[in-house]
Amino acid sequence: QYENQASGENMIFRQLFDAKSSTYTYLLADEQSKTAVLIDPVFEQVNRDVALINELGLNLAYALDTHCHADHVTGSWLLKHKANCKIASAKSIHAKNSDIGLVNGDIINFGQYELEVRATPGHTEGCLTYVCHTQKIAFTGDALLIRGCGRCDFQQGSASQLFDSIHQQIFSLSDDFQLYPGHDYSGRCSTSVSEEKQFNARLGGNASREDFVGYMNNMSLPHPKF
Amino acid sequence: QYENQASGENMIFRQLFDAKSSTYTYLLADEQSKTAVLIDPVFEQVNRDVALINELGLNLAYALDTHCHADHVTGSWLLKHKANCKIASAKSIHAKNSDIGLVNGDIINFGQYELEVRATPGHTEGCLTYVCHTQKIAFTGDALLIRGCGRCDFQQGSASQLFDSIHQQIFSLSDDFQLYPGHDYSGRCSTSVSEEKQFNARLGGNASREDFVGYMNNMSLPHPKF
Repeated sequence: QYENQASGENMIFRQLFDAKSSTYTYLLADEQSKTAVLIDPVFEQVNRDVALINELGLNLAYALDTHCHADHVTGSWLLKHKANCKIASAKSIHAKNSDIGLVNGDIINFGQYELEVRATPGHTEGCLTYVCHTQKIAFTGDALLIRGCGRCDFQQGSASQLFDSIHQQIFSLSDDFQLYPGHDYSGRCSTSVSEEKQFNARLGGNASREDFVGYMNNMSLPHPKF
Repeated sequence: QYENQASGENMIFRQLFDAKSSTYTYLLADEQSKTAVLIDPVFEQVNRDVALINELGLNLAYALDTHCHADHVTGSWLLKHKANCKIASAKSIHAKNSDIGLVNGDIINFGQYELEVRATPGHTEGCLTYVCHTQKIAFTGDALLIRGCGRCDFQQGSASQLFDSIHQQIFSLSDDFQLYPGHDYSGRCSTSVSEEKQFNARLGGNASREDFVGYMNNMSLPHPKF
């Protein structure tokens, strides 16, 4: 339960929220080496995030984007200049501000901890999920949301691909993995593999790829504000 | 680190957020016995909370209020009718809907876990902090906030009392306790005893009671909306 208690390890973990875009940002750090990563920083919240990083005496190694939409990539860019970190995002999207192009299976080290990069395209072509196996936590970005998932109808989205990404790369983790999404619009902060397999109406249980693709392709969502 | 990892125990822990009032609600449960408690339910979010409790197959034993303001007590009342739980709040406030009047030192059991009740008056007369010693977490309501604290200028507030409550009842926990507040207005989800001792400008470090009382009594805040 929580930092300092995972079999003698010392992980700092902080979830942060941007109310305007309902976006979650995650700070992870190794308390011993003081090395940190920040997942999905939001532009408007960079001062808050840098203040916390500085207070805790951390050295930010990487800003990690789960995907490349307007709200995310600009946060990393500003953070790079304020905290002198490297930006990492999916290699496939050739983000011009990115220092490191990540591909499926890459490992990101921060102190004694590591994150495995899993390619989970479908919402966008370059969506990544970051998995910390020792802590049994994963950061699913906009691929898998709590009881939902990211839309697939613009920016190279593909419902069929998203269905496979979630089933092969996220639901293949053990049931007790805690999942932290890129957004939630109902104030829920986390879920688990077990919960989403049981209660995600479109993706869990006996949901078929065909039904999922049909549903996602007929949502007719408005273009997002952010 | 997280549920299922605290030395063989099995605690379900979920933080939930109400964006309108920036209020946090916390669901804690023993996965084995399925017994749950909900701290500070918000009226408008009761349907969300009941849905989660039902999905997870939990039996809600108690709705626990950290204090008695408009946004909190009505949530407990509605929850009592929807989830058949008991309402517990500070005995000193004689809340008419409360089933259990809590005093300092009381223990609330839920399955294999327990919460210790600590009286932390000052924001209001009936403010309580709930401490789970095995998990090293505490729920501080509106007494201690992240880098701040609750206002003391109405509803029997007392800055002097709040200073003592925080120092004697919260800062006396070990530094590695994670603290979960009743509100945060900047999207921060948690802090620690160590952090607040270091970085809470009004209460940490060498802050004196005299300075704190002077500061709090001269804030001239507008009356809250919620």
